This record gives sequence, structure tokens and C-alpha cells, in this order.
Amino acid sequence: MLYDFRSFINPGYYAFGKGTLSRLGQLIDRRKENGKGWTAYLIDIYFKDKNIEAKLPIIAGDLIIWIDPVLEPKTSLVDEYAAQIKAHNPQLPSVVVGMGGGTAMDYGKAVRLMVTNSGASHEYQGLDKIKNPGIYCICIPTISGTGAEVSMTTVLSGPEKKLGIKCDYTMPDEIIFDPELLDTVPDAQRFYTGMDCFIHNVESLEGTWITTMGKAFAEKSNEMCEDVFMNDSLSRIEADEKLMVASILGGNSITYAQVGVCHALSYGLAHVLGIHHGVGNCIVFNQLEKYYPEGYKKFKEMQIKAGVEIPEGICANVTDEQLNVMAAKALANEHMWDNAFGKEWRNHINADIIKDLYRKM
Amino acid sequence: MLYDFRSFINPGYYAFGKGTLSRLGQLIDRRKENGKGWTAYLIDIYFKDKNIEAKLPIIAGDLIIWIDPVLEPKTSLVDEYAAQIKAHNPQLPSVVVGMGGGTAMDYGKAVRLMVTNSGASHEYQGLDKIKNPGIYCICIPTISGTGAEVSMTTVLSGPEKKLGIKCDYTMPDEIIFDPELLDTVPDAQRFYTGMDCFIHNVESLEGTWITTMGKAFAEKSNEMCEDVFMNDSLSRIEADEKLMVASILGGNSITYAQVGVCHALSYGLAHVLGIHHGVGNCIVFNQLEKYYPEGYKKFKEMQIKAGVEIPEGICANVTDEQLNVMAAKALANEHMWDNAFGKEWRNHINADIIKDLYRKM
Repeated sequence: MLYDFRSFINPGYYAFGKGTLSRLGQLIDRRKENGKGWTAYLIDIYFKDKNIEAKLPIIAGDLIIWIDPVLEPKTSLVDEYAAQIKAHNPQLPSVVVGMGGGTAMDYGKAVRLMVTNSGASHEYQGLDKIKNPGIYCICIPTISGTGAEVSMTTVLSGPEKKLGIKCDYTMPDEIIFDPELLDTVPDAQRFYTGMDCFIHNVESLEGTWITTMGKAFAEKSNEMCEDVFMNDSLSRIEADEKLMVASILGGNSITYAQVGVCHALSYGLAHVLGIHHGVGNCIVFNQLEKYYPEGYKKFKEMQIKAGVEIPEGICANVTDEQLNVMAAKALANEHMWDNAFGKEWRNHINADIIKDLYRKM
Repeated sequence: MLYDFRSFINPGYYAFGKGTLSRLGQLIDRRKENGKGWTAYLIDIYFKDKNIEAKLPIIAGDLIIWIDPVLEPKTSLVDEYAAQIKAHNPQLPSVVVGMGGGTAMDYGKAVRLMVTNSGASHEYQGLDKIKNPGIYCICIPTISGTGAEVSMTTVLSGPEKKLGIKCDYTMPDEIIFDPELLDTVPDAQRFYTGMDCFIHNVESLEGTWITTMGKAFAEKSNEMCEDVFMNDSLSRIEADEKLMVASILGGNSITYAQVGVCHALSYGLAHVLGIHHGVGNCIVFNQLEKYYPEGYKKFKEMQIKAGVEIPEGICANVTDEQLNVMAAKALANEHMWDNAFGKEWRNHINADIIKDLYRKM
């Protein structure tokens, strides 16, 4: 059950299919006034030495900012990138492109808001705090599963909290889904990010907030996810295209439902140990057989098939103090616990149970 | 395979869930400038003596136009309703509401364009002909399956042709999905409209234009459709909510794919005999076992379960001349034939085959 009524915004436009990246220039041009304007690109640094500029419609006056996805998006860097864009040209860009995984796309989504809203991005963490629409934002996923490309949240780690800037204005205006871009993703990354999708679908389906909309999207998304990771007869490009659609549907599902135990615990790992969201979810879900037995079983099957290791022992040297902070950060995600266990969630989970789970990771 | 690249627009906002109609006032108010403005309602005439005004946030200055869905939307009536709105108040409305089935919603979608674009609506039949954005349009389906609520086309019968006004501006800005509104739909109507969804999914899935996106949406949509019409354990409200989601997914599927044999023939029936789209599709599909054997089998199972008759003998008194026109109208839908049979579709279908099919209906 959702707390409050909301009419949910959809992503603006979907450009879908092999080779679609080549149309980016067209899509940018139609957002320019009188053919004038420039574009700020926020691109995963992985592409820096891959001659990506040759594949992008970059013209004189455009700006590229390389995004290092090793750390999750930070409010401090959002502010830095926004300042860099404003310093580059006093005339704001016509388009901001976010190209990469969840991190690069979330930077794109956030930075495009912070060039049109005054102050610092951490002031806007929360629901519906942004005042002005942002610059037209085109997201281009190059790895699939996070659902960031279709989400009205950009999750940011601020000085005080990891919390999304969540509002209608955060939603990307346009997304290019080109499965060829996923071709070079390493197996482990591909698995972790694909499992982000699988896991949030499980949490959505098993949660108390599930709706008919959320259920339809999550079920189909997970059917496709399992096909991607279990079906040998798919070619890589077929599998990648399926994973892109699974990611859309999974992201859509969360709009009409909510995540649960795994995402709540993963927030604690991210905050204290800086563990990235995709692998963090896998590390946590690896200990959640009790809470999601069926999902866990499928997860392990896919993991074995993918031949990917899930890091273990990451909490071996964690201090009691750190553990307390992690548990507190996890517990603070009340909406996730409410979804997982219902209104009486405090009867099902507490800091001690959470710390026991963390100790196993 | 799609002919041309296009970045497809999504519907603006989805307000989903039981009781959501009660939020319409809120949704209208946030589209008013400085709290001022009025609303034009285009509502299926079925609701005229059902005291629907008590459930709608109607205020002084609003206008209700009752839509008779017996005939499919006509360009002449679109122009008439647009003139009525402009005569009602020289200040254009803030919102146009289209409430009902595909017909009322398509009138809403078209009329909201014709108050901001000069000339007559038949001049805009075709792709991307509309010049100016329309009034903010909220669609409220009260019967589900057409997918009109999520489609960038409003299909209109003009003086010369039945052809959509198709462009980004046609897409509804917001949709209220309230399953309680489907409660009073008679069984036959519910079946015909539900089968519109089922049939366009079959055509999408069996067509040569299918994409991974179109396939995902159509498969899930038909799984839900079959559940709605075959699963006795669903309550009416559960089934209606599922049918609403199936309709969204089916409509989405067509965006990334194309309809086929049934829709092409149904256009001929509509043009010459004025047969409505939903029942027309059922009449046609009832003769398409050869082209869609699996879909046909499921269709017949659902029909028997629903206990609904499909009209027969409707072409018994059709003249040769009428039959020629019907076949010509059907054949003119080249994109549908291309989807159904591929580029060499003329080797598979011709006027004689089509006339033989019509004679059986």
C-alpha cells in the first residue's frame, strides 16, 4: 500500500534499438533554440581512452566531464560539475547527456537540476524540493539493471545522508537504449548490475506495497533477467537488448512499489564502507535466503552460471562503532522496512538482527 | 523492423489505483495558472444519467460535452466540439478531460489539439502534421483494452479516410487509471474491448516488425488478458485492474511494433459498414485461424468462457461494390501488411483473398 497518492511521471522519450546512438545528434539538435546551443556530456571515464568522441556528435563549445564510477554519486561532486558547466559558458547548455551506468546517469540527472536551481545539491535531498525545471537531460545507459534511466530519483551521498533528490523534474527527458553499448561490459559488472534489477524486482514482488502495475513490470522484468543470465541460446546482443528492457521494466516497477531488506542493508554498506550499489546488493542478497528464499535460489543459480564471485569477508575488520552506524543507516530506510514487513515492521527487524547479517558479509 | 528511426514519446503521468478518480480535482488544479482556468470534459454519454457530475470536480464555468460512442470518432465532430469549446469561453480551457472508452478518449486527444491549431482536423490526418501543442489532456478510461490512453494516435474517420492524427502532441499528458470505473461495463463490451488488446498483441508478436520492447510488453499484456478472461479466482475488481494494466502494456507494445491482418480488415468494416473497432476486430479475428492459429485458439477459449456472441452474417447483404471498397480500404494499410507478411506482402494477400474473408463474416 502506498502512503500517499501520487500521479507518477513517465520518462519523456525512448529511442530504442541497435545503432540508436548514431541518432544522438538529431535528438540534441531538436532541443536547441534556433539551432543554437551547446551540450554538456557527463560520461563514464571507462570511455575516455575508447575514442568515444568519434561516436558522439560533439561540436565546438561542447563540454565533456568524465565521471569516475568507483564512488557513488556525491552531492559535493554534483555541485562541482554544475559549477564547471556554468563556468564553461554563461549561456546554459541546451542538453545535458548522462552516459554510463547508474552513477554517470544519476550525475547527469542531478547536475542538470543544479545549474537551474540555486544553492547546494544537499539542500535538495528529499522529496519534491527542487523549485525549477532542469536542462533537457538525455540518458544513455552503457550497462543495464539499475533502472536509473527511468527513475525520478537521483541517489546522492551527501554530508549527512545518502538520499535521493526525488521529484518530477529529476526524471530523464529522453533515453537512448542502444544494446551495442553494452557489448564491452565485463562479466562481473554485468552480473552485479543485472542483479540490481533482479533484486529490486524480488523486493517489489515480495513487498506489502506491491500494486498490479508494479507486479506486472517486476514479473516480466525478472522473467527477462533470468533469460539473460540462464539461456545459452541467446547471442550477446540479444541478451543485452533483453537486459535493457528488463532494466526499464524493473525501474518502472519500483515507481509503483518499493524496495526492501536488501536495498536497506546495502545503504549501510555504501555509507560506511563505500561499497558500490550493484555489488553491494549482491553481497547483501547473498545472506538473505531467510527473507527471500525463492529469489535467493534463482540468484544463486544465476551466479553459478555467470561464474562470478561475490565478495565475502568485507565486514571482517569492521569495528563495533562502524557496525552501529551501518545498522542505523539501514534502519533509517523506514519505507523499505514498511514495504518488506508491513506497518509492524519493528516486530521483524532491529539493529541486532541487522548487525548479525552484516557480520556474515 | 521499423521503417524509420523515431524516439517515442511516453504518456506524461500515470495516476493508478482504486479510488484515484477522486484526485482529479487536484490534478486539474495544478495545471491552472494562478488557480484560474476551466475544464472541458468530453464524457461517454453512458454516464449522462449516472450522476457522474457528483463524482467529478466540476465548477462553474466548466463545460461537459457528451460523447456518443456508437459511431467511431469523426473529424467533423472533432471540429464541432473544438468550436463548442472556443465558443464557451474565449479563454481556452486549462485542461481537456476525455473520459470513456477509446472513442471518448480519442475525441479528448483530438479536440484538445484542434483548439490550438487552426483549420479543420481532417487536414491533420497523418504523421507529424500538428503544428502547436494542445491543451493539457487527462484521459480517464472507463473500459479497457484499446490502448488509446497511452497512444500517440487519435484515430479519426474523415471525409476521405480513416486515419490517425499521429504525433508527439497527440499523446495524453496524464491518465487516471481507476479500476472502479470499469465495474459497470457490460460483458459483451468488456470482452470486445479486451480482445482489441489481445488481438493487437497477437498481431504485434506474430509480425515482422516486432522488437524486444514490443515483445516484452505484448507478452505480458496477453498473459494478463488471458488471466482476466480465464481465471475464475479473480474478483471483478482484481480482473478490471489487471485489464487496465494489460491495456497500458498492449498500447505500449504497438508503439514499438505494428498491428496486422485483423486491424487492416477491421478498417474496411468500419469504413463501409460503420462497425465499431472492438467488435469489428472480433468479427474479423473470428475468421483468421489460418493467419494466427495459436492466437485464434486462445481467442475462442476466452469467447466461450465469456459467453459472448460474435456477430455473424454482417456481410450477407453487402454489394460487390461495397466489397470492393472494403477490400481497397483494407489493402491501403500497407504498413500493417508489411508487418504481417514482410516486404513481399503482396505475394501473400490481395483483394480476392480479402473479399473471401469478408464474405465469411
